[in-house]
Amino acid sequence: MIVILKHGTKEDKKEQLISWLKSQGVDIHISVGSYQTVLGLVGDTSQVDKDLVASLDIVDSVKTVSDPFKCCNRKFHPDDTIVTVGDVKVGGGNFCMIAGPCSVENEEQIVGIAKAVKASGANMLRGGAFKPRTSPYDFQGLKATGIELLKIARQETGLPIVTEVMGVNDLPLFEDVDVIQIGARNMQNFDLLREVGKLRKPILLKRGLASTIKELLMSAEYIMAGGNEQIILCERGIRTFDDYTRNTLDLAVVPLLHELSHLPVIVDPSHATGVARLVRPMALAGVAAGCDGLIIEVHNDPMHALCDGAQSLRPEEYDSLCRAVNGIREVVTK
Amino acid sequence: MIVILKHGTKEDKKEQLISWLKSQGVDIHISVGSYQTVLGLVGDTSQVDKDLVASLDIVDSVKTVSDPFKCCNRKFHPDDTIVTVGDVKVGGGNFCMIAGPCSVENEEQIVGIAKAVKASGANMLRGGAFKPRTSPYDFQGLKATGIELLKIARQETGLPIVTEVMGVNDLPLFEDVDVIQIGARNMQNFDLLREVGKLRKPILLKRGLASTIKELLMSAEYIMAGGNEQIILCERGIRTFDDYTRNTLDLAVVPLLHELSHLPVIVDPSHATGVARLVRPMALAGVAAGCDGLIIEVHNDPMHALCDGAQSLRPEEYDSLCRAVNGIREVVTK
Amino acid sequence: MIVILKHGTKEDKKEQLISWLKSQGVDIHISVGSYQTVLGLVGDTSQVDKDLVASLDIVDSVKTVSDPFKCCNRKFHPDDTIVTVGDVKVGGGNFCMIAGPCSVENEEQIVGIAKAVKASGANMLRGGAFKPRTSPYDFQGLKATGIELLKIARQETGLPIVTEVMGVNDLPLFEDVDVIQIGARNMQNFDLLREVGKLRKPILLKRGLASTIKELLMSAEYIMAGGNEQIILCERGIRTFDDYTRNTLDLAVVPLLHELSHLPVIVDPSHATGVARLVRPMALAGVAAGCDGLIIEVHNDPMHALCDGAQSLRPEEYDSLCRAVNGIREVVTK
Amino acid sequence: MIVILKHGTKEDKKEQLISWLKSQGVDIHISVGSYQTVLGLVGDTSQVDKDLVASLDIVDSVKTVSDPFKCCNRKFHPDDTIVTVGDVKVGGGNFCMIAGPCSVENEEQIVGIAKAVKASGANMLRGGAFKPRTSPYDFQGLKATGIELLKIARQETGLPIVTEVMGVNDLPLFEDVDVIQIGARNMQNFDLLREVGKLRKPILLKRGLASTIKELLMSAEYIMAGGNEQIILCERGIRTFDDYTRNTLDLAVVPLLHELSHLPVIVDPSHATGVARLVRPMALAGVAAGCDGLIIEVHNDPMHALCDGAQSLRPEEYDSLCRAVNGIREVVTK
Repeated sequence: MIVILKHGTKEDKKEQLISWLKSQGVDIHISVGSYQTVLGLVGDTSQVDKDLVASLDIVDSVKTVSDPFKCCNRKFHPDDTIVTVGDVKVGGGNFCMIAGPCSVENEEQIVGIAKAVKASGANMLRGGAFKPRTSPYDFQGLKATGIELLKIARQETGLPIVTEVMGVNDLPLFEDVDVIQIGARNMQNFDLLREVGKLRKPILLKRGLASTIKELLMSAEYIMAGGNEQIILCERGIRTFDDYTRNTLDLAVVPLLHELSHLPVIVDPSHATGVARLVRPMALAGVAAGCDGLIIEVHNDPMHALCDGAQSLRPEEYDSLCRAVNGIREVVTK
Repeated sequence: MIVILKHGTKEDKKEQLISWLKSQGVDIHISVGSYQTVLGLVGDTSQVDKDLVASLDIVDSVKTVSDPFKCCNRKFHPDDTIVTVGDVKVGGGNFCMIAGPCSVENEEQIVGIAKAVKASGANMLRGGAFKPRTSPYDFQGLKATGIELLKIARQETGLPIVTEVMGVNDLPLFEDVDVIQIGARNMQNFDLLREVGKLRKPILLKRGLASTIKELLMSAEYIMAGGNEQIILCERGIRTFDDYTRNTLDLAVVPLLHELSHLPVIVDPSHATGVARLVRPMALAGVAAGCDGLIIEVHNDPMHALCDGAQSLRPEEYDSLCRAVNGIREVVTK
Repeated sequence: MIVILKHGTKEDKKEQLISWLKSQGVDIHISVGSYQTVLGLVGDTSQVDKDLVASLDIVDSVKTVSDPFKCCNRKFHPDDTIVTVGDVKVGGGNFCMIAGPCSVENEEQIVGIAKAVKASGANMLRGGAFKPRTSPYDFQGLKATGIELLKIARQETGLPIVTEVMGVNDLPLFEDVDVIQIGARNMQNFDLLREVGKLRKPILLKRGLASTIKELLMSAEYIMAGGNEQIILCERGIRTFDDYTRNTLDLAVVPLLHELSHLPVIVDPSHATGVARLVRPMALAGVAAGCDGLIIEVHNDPMHALCDGAQSLRPEEYDSLCRAVNGIREVVTK
Repeated sequence: MIVILKHGTKEDKKEQLISWLKSQGVDIHISVGSYQTVLGLVGDTSQVDKDLVASLDIVDSVKTVSDPFKCCNRKFHPDDTIVTVGDVKVGGGNFCMIAGPCSVENEEQIVGIAKAVKASGANMLRGGAFKPRTSPYDFQGLKATGIELLKIARQETGLPIVTEVMGVNDLPLFEDVDVIQIGARNMQNFDLLREVGKLRKPILLKRGLASTIKELLMSAEYIMAGGNEQIILCERGIRTFDDYTRNTLDLAVVPLLHELSHLPVIVDPSHATGVARLVRPMALAGVAAGCDGLIIEVHNDPMHALCDGAQSLRPEEYDSLCRAVNGIREVVTK
């Protein structure tokens, strides 16, 4: 941590600050410039309250030098993490194609869609059983029944299943789920993060609508601090002033997260745009940006979907997309 | 709901859409303009998926006419809700002054601060027992012990206590808390909202960092749909591109929420700015904008606070602020 | 335009509004619903002040039906506009590769870079002569001399030249420039837009940092209303809360602009990210999203560039990028 | 400037960087930590390209220590600047009340409104002659005629006049205007800033919709670098995800700008909210936050205003507001 003192700071005030900082267990390197004095804090600065120091009268600004995330930091773990879900691998050059309906509606629907997306090349099945909805009056998902239907679809197709958990008390129902999704609105539900950190099961962690990259990594850190190292990060759009799409897909985070962390990063173009006809170009853009997989909503009958029909691809559209994804992958990984 | 068709839509496609819409149980008023055709949907449109209709090839755009929030809507409940906390009333002309430390640290600290803020005019005591922290390595609060210490401070001063809950499983510990706070990061933790909706205890609901006013009201609606009508809304800053303060305090929501809803609205200038010397001007601005109360962090020794010391006022600063607040209140309510 | 009246609006107030609206020269279709009354305004509504109507006591909300942009609207001009710059075509399936240094520095530099990027496949040369800089103390460009050096580079390579104009009084210097760029900060410099609308020369119009798609199209409309129809739109990143990159590249606007308008759309990954190592993934993502060209900063010696060295590719990096771009183009246009 | 090297940087690479930095004319203080090496750059670092250094492979991050703005910096000019407009003073404890219509429409209108607002306590008259409009098809102002009408209103009332300039070529028309306004969209029209920097006349500089505080101050710096030190800064709302008001009024910048700069700061609640009934609470909030003045739109007949009628107060509303402003001022300045 580096503390820059204001011009004209009196000697006694400076000494006072230095001795207080030392009392927090850090060493201080003092560097007196022509205009400003800079204090370099060496040692374990994790106990020094950066905001508090920055708020002092004599302090101009404070800069932190080291990242607060450790477990998910590429600096300490240079090799890519490969998350393994049954036979499917994600990360380290392995690409995953997760597809399925927003909500599980009934056996015929989920099994039918699972077979269709598998035929196109999907290697995991998604489907919402517990649905986070802005309104308490909207359809909230089939819950336990939905999970049972996903298992049937898995049995029929062999596809591992991915589904979202909304609260700690529902976790027992997810024991036989292959990948547990933490939704964007729960990215900083720290209770839930801590609980899934105790599991030894892959977690799909979606970035919150207004979360920075650092916050996303700190949430991954909550899970990893509990010992669960199987995490897939997911960019799904952020909230900006832009009002033509539901959210703004922030693809630069794909290469950035790969620099900062060893965890795999996938892209969700369906939720980011909220519009089916934008899913294809944004999915391809995500692949071109170097992501490790895509999670895409597919529905056999979007007009009658109980949820988010507007952003679902039809199976034939998904099939065409998969072929284009392979083409882009070939160019990018060459 | 109003559906505007694209110019040049073919008759048969239009008929198909109309018959599909009617099959969802709504009546259609057709209005053919010189350039565009507009369909007015009458009846219960809550089952019609707006996004799906908007995504159809022949549809230019869709507009919704009625608000999705009912219980907290001033249209259906014109009088101000007055939330009652012991002897303290909030809303309907009643102003609350909630103050206290970010975190409860020990008995001496919390009792001392409680006495000080009461002497200045505070009528409720805040203090964090469960702390949502971005990093798993930061101090997470005294938890159950913190709540016990708050009760002691209440006994010593008579001030009702306000503290944040982070998960449904901790709720039993809050049975004897006067006001339960739902933090900004949990504003869309729907499981938690549903659970506190079952209580009959005042809830302080903070706006999420990237939540619209409508989303805030829908979260209040989750609580009210469960039968709990004692809700205090709280503006605490939103996330914008602006990087000089922690968040951007969005004070226009105070009069706007008063128009849209009958619930009381308070302001938290401490978390919004993150900087103690901005708390006073922003607190006064909130009062001038017409809020029903303030929640402010006060610490007797900000330099040694375990959390958020940078944004805490000292008791003497709080005392001076209280006098100015009264002055502004007199002007505004005249 | 559609005006939704508040529930319980009195008959006389409604009649008053209707007669005032009629006095503005529009016809009114009244549709009385069970809960709300909706007025449909038919005819030329361009003179009706939407915001004013929305602010009336008895009005719940106002919705506009038709787009305010005409000349650049695909509805009225279904075929792609192809902008022609010498032998180079942009749009309608024609892809442009614009490359060159942020600033023109000297003859050797600009000619050298021009030759290098041409060899890699670039078909236009960019280079800043007038530089918009946040600080008055930063290098402001070589101005007229810079333009002369660009012309020399054009002579040496045959590449058309693209350079930014900052004010109307400099326009005479741009007479022999092939494409005039309007920078992001000037996107709503309406005086300048009007002036370049009088020219018959291609304009590269960059989206402002906080401009909506509609505002971008309205700025194109300013130029087209003057009779200049040769416009290339450019996405270069928007300002969001995200702080790891300079701006957030908003690639969904590429397909969206193609839907709304017939004008070609290119992408600038250099300014969007501000970081050379993110230029390649974001450039490829733009191509995968369907853009009609790329504008990229290339410098032979980024360490000694006078401006924006951090975001410049080296010629060999640009060469490698061009090959990948071609690969992606093949997949996308198949 | 402080350069933090990546962990594990090789000695020779470090030496190379240091010698290159020294070649830019700065001294280097090296501080080797247990984990990272930090280089402190001492001397004139204005020629060192921060972004370029940050982009180097071996560099973890770069921090700047000193502010890039000089003339408007309070560090170098501790006393408040007082801008003098005829008999009116702004800043240093002097409060200005600027009021008038969005657009000047005719003599009767502007003189009538001028008299009304003067009677209520306004001490300057605003009125748009040149109007920046998003659409080329909207009313663009009376231009030169508008300025003549403002002068008549000044003659009738004695109020100094404030009006916006849109381009450098119109400046001769503003010779007899008392305060020249630079609008939000032109905040980074550097050509225009440089030109008004040559004048010796007060400039009202509005913050851009997506401008940081630093960028606002750098734009003031452009004007001051030309020798014009009479600048009034104006906060008028920023663009955020929030969609209930036109913009989000960012009042924390009032105390922040007062800390960073000696220039006076006023608030424009009319453009920030775009809704007349929010002008009063936001105006009072601005005063409570400590601003040096208000600029407010007043129209005698908002229903027939040619522009922005929705956000205009009626004269009687302005009168009532002025009394409340005085009340708040008394509390704040006590």
